[in-house]
Amino acid sequence: MIFITRRERFSAAHRLFNPEWSEEKNASFYGGCSNPNWHGHNYELWITVKGEIKQELGYLVDLKLLGSLVKEHIISKLDHKNINVEVDFMKGKMVSTENLAIAIWEELEPFLRQIDVDLHCVKIQETENNFVEYYG
Amino acid sequence: MIFITRRERFSAAHRLFNPEWSEEKNASFYGGCSNPNWHGHNYELWITVKGEIKQELGYLVDLKLLGSLVKEHIISKLDHKNINVEVDFMKGKMVSTENLAIAIWEELEPFLRQIDVDLHCVKIQETENNFVEYYG
Amino acid sequence: MIFITRRERFSAAHRLFNPEWSEEKNASFYGGCSNPNWHGHNYELWITVKGEIKQELGYLVDLKLLGSLVKEHIISKLDHKNINVEVDFMKGKMVSTENLAIAIWEELEPFLRQIDVDLHCVKIQETENNFVEYYG
Amino acid sequence: MIFITRRERFSAAHRLFNPEWSEEKNASFYGGCSNPNWHGHNYELWITVKGEIKQELGYLVDLKLLGSLVKEHIISKLDHKNINVEVDFMKGKMVSTENLAIAIWEELEPFLRQIDVDLHCVKIQETENNFVEYYG
Amino acid sequence: MIFITRRERFSAAHRLFNPEWSEEKNASFYGGCSNPNWHGHNYELWITVKGEIKQELGYLVDLKLLGSLVKEHIISKLDHKNINVEVDFMKGKMVSTENLAIAIWEELEPFLRQIDVDLHCVKIQETENNFVEYYG
Amino acid sequence: MIFITRRERFSAAHRLFNPEWSEEKNASFYGGCSNPNWHGHNYELWITVKGEIKQELGYLVDLKLLGSLVKEHIISKLDHKNINVEVDFMKGKMVSTENLAIAIWEELEPFLRQIDVDLHCVKIQETENNFVEYYG
Repeated sequence: MIFITRRERFSAAHRLFNPEWSEEKNASFYGGCSNPNWHGHNYELWITVKGEIKQELGYLVDLKLLGSLVKEHIISKLDHKNINVEVDFMKGKMVSTENLAIAIWEELEPFLRQIDVDLHCVKIQETENNFVEYYG
Repeated sequence: MIFITRRERFSAAHRLFNPEWSEEKNASFYGGCSNPNWHGHNYELWITVKGEIKQELGYLVDLKLLGSLVKEHIISKLDHKNINVEVDFMKGKMVSTENLAIAIWEELEPFLRQIDVDLHCVKIQETENNFVEYYG
Repeated sequence: MIFITRRERFSAAHRLFNPEWSEEKNASFYGGCSNPNWHGHNYELWITVKGEIKQELGYLVDLKLLGSLVKEHIISKLDHKNINVEVDFMKGKMVSTENLAIAIWEELEPFLRQIDVDLHCVKIQETENNFVEYYG
Repeated sequence: MIFITRRERFSAAHRLFNPEWSEEKNASFYGGCSNPNWHGHNYELWITVKGEIKQELGYLVDLKLLGSLVKEHIISKLDHKNINVEVDFMKGKMVSTENLAIAIWEELEPFLRQIDVDLHCVKIQETENNFVEYYG
Repeated sequence: MIFITRRERFSAAHRLFNPEWSEEKNASFYGGCSNPNWHGHNYELWITVKGEIKQELGYLVDLKLLGSLVKEHIISKLDHKNINVEVDFMKGKMVSTENLAIAIWEELEPFLRQIDVDLHCVKIQETENNFVEYYG
Repeated sequence: MIFITRRERFSAAHRLFNPEWSEEKNASFYGGCSNPNWHGHNYELWITVKGEIKQELGYLVDLKLLGSLVKEHIISKLDHKNINVEVDFMKGKMVSTENLAIAIWEELEPFLRQIDVDLHCVKIQETENNFVEYYG
């Protein structure tokens, strides 16, 4: 069993916002992170997959293929977007890094199964001081 | 003559947008960077000042004082904000990193003169792959 | 189950020193790391907590609250201090990164339980070439 | 139980190449990574060991000893070398990062057992965008 | 006058080798860096250009255009290549980072003039511990 | 003219302290940075030299020679030391990063002249948020 990790990046706008609450309640719970005019980040996304090395090929997975799947199904939907407004798989959700990691797992996992690797971890770094990890 | 640099950070939303152009023209020139729903970045700001070492104190400037001036006059206005909409010193300007560097210079320079240091460089890193430097 | 990590930093002096040994024995075992005049580091501390996402809030924990607990109970006692001499929870211990990680776990864990998250890992990076992880 | 990690680095040439295939088949599977004239990387190697803190010494392992074992048995054989051509423990193998991680584990593990620590993980970062982890 | 910098990366093989010297003399002067079997690096390339902000556009240069010129004329010739053997603009030269920086300047500068910016600096980082800067 | 930079690192203890002042005055001016029990940092030192490429050798300077001079004359005196107490070239000086940069210039410059390169800049990074540059 071996683990391989691919990093991709995206820059996006978001706000912490619970649509069932008033603006005042959102502001009191989430502070500046709930600014109605949005703010944004350079997110770093690490996708870790695991499995057995394919004997003939000598690797677990073609990293270019892995990268292109992540770009096609995840990055293209997030990069230079407003996550609250424009990202189908985040519709109706509070746009925390936690929820984003889970949603990316759910979006990406079926495509990884098709190329015969197991998704092990979705890690998202929001700033240099915090990151989230989800293991399914 | 010695140079000392202080780094501060802010996370903000923006878009490249020329208010004298139509949305279509903005989109054709700036592409995804002009997304009307905004996107954002973790910006890193380096403020470099220069001068003679103050003999009795043994340093050029109290870094905590320098940091607090940058936070008060610059970071507090940018962090978790929408730069196009909410930042007074960017009103009516195209929110490029270039224009942001010049505006930060103009905002900050008078306060640095009051503490007896010369502003040498404003550097803004927008992503790990690009940064702007302005020397006045 | 989701994992979230907060980074905090501190700069401190220390030495590797076993108080039950002579200076000579300390020097022979720990070399320059046991310099009686001290040396120091910029330490990076990563606190990883785990748990279920709080449904109404959409996150595991308020990162500002987590950060302020780490600052209040850990960073304020270590930053710009001599770890051997001034840090109550390291008294009488050999000030290795290993012992520091365990002591930080023991100091911090009760406060994290009060905000309803489980401490998962204390990671301390001493230099760019080494770090310690403790999982309780 | 505590975990401690040591980073070492090496710069080396390699190519992805399955000696049982023709050059054409290698090129079609591995693309530019199979360039017959080689390419290279700055590899970062993280060796994580685990165990109980040695009570009298107050640490898990002398980091200088750990570092010197990694340098003697691994780095000296890889740094400024051609991994396909010159590294005994990679002879006859497809020089992927995955295979390199496993081979380093097998080379290093007996020497670590001699100094009474358990090897936990071999991590190799090939570029800033990908890394491999092997846990035995 | 404003300065903007774009980073691109390439991974390549090379050796320090003076073709007018014997292998023995090369080895004695350049040591392991002259290994006849090659070694390699992840190079980071920073291209800094300078000029006036274009008033209507609000920026100095379209970063995507700058990046694509660097990729087309420089990176595509270096990435996953052997610099000594395969790179036309390094033919017959000692492949030091110094000579590489100068050659990249000479290759790139005419194309930058066509998009109306002045090349200010070519910086190449070969490892985390050394880099070269050339200002023309 | 080409510029080449070598990075070296050292970990040391220090305090900001003007020996002509009382402890109280030192504390009031320098705050926690003047803690009488010391604190410390992982310092990063960048030495930039400049000159013409030596035609026959194809480089400005042998980086290993440059590194070994920096290690011999600077790093060996600072690493795992108390800068205020143990470093001859800092005796009687306020141990600010500014004064350290100037002292390192004065120590190192004669040795660099002997190997026929011009010292261009001494840069010291004290934490990830601040650094000093001295150009002589």
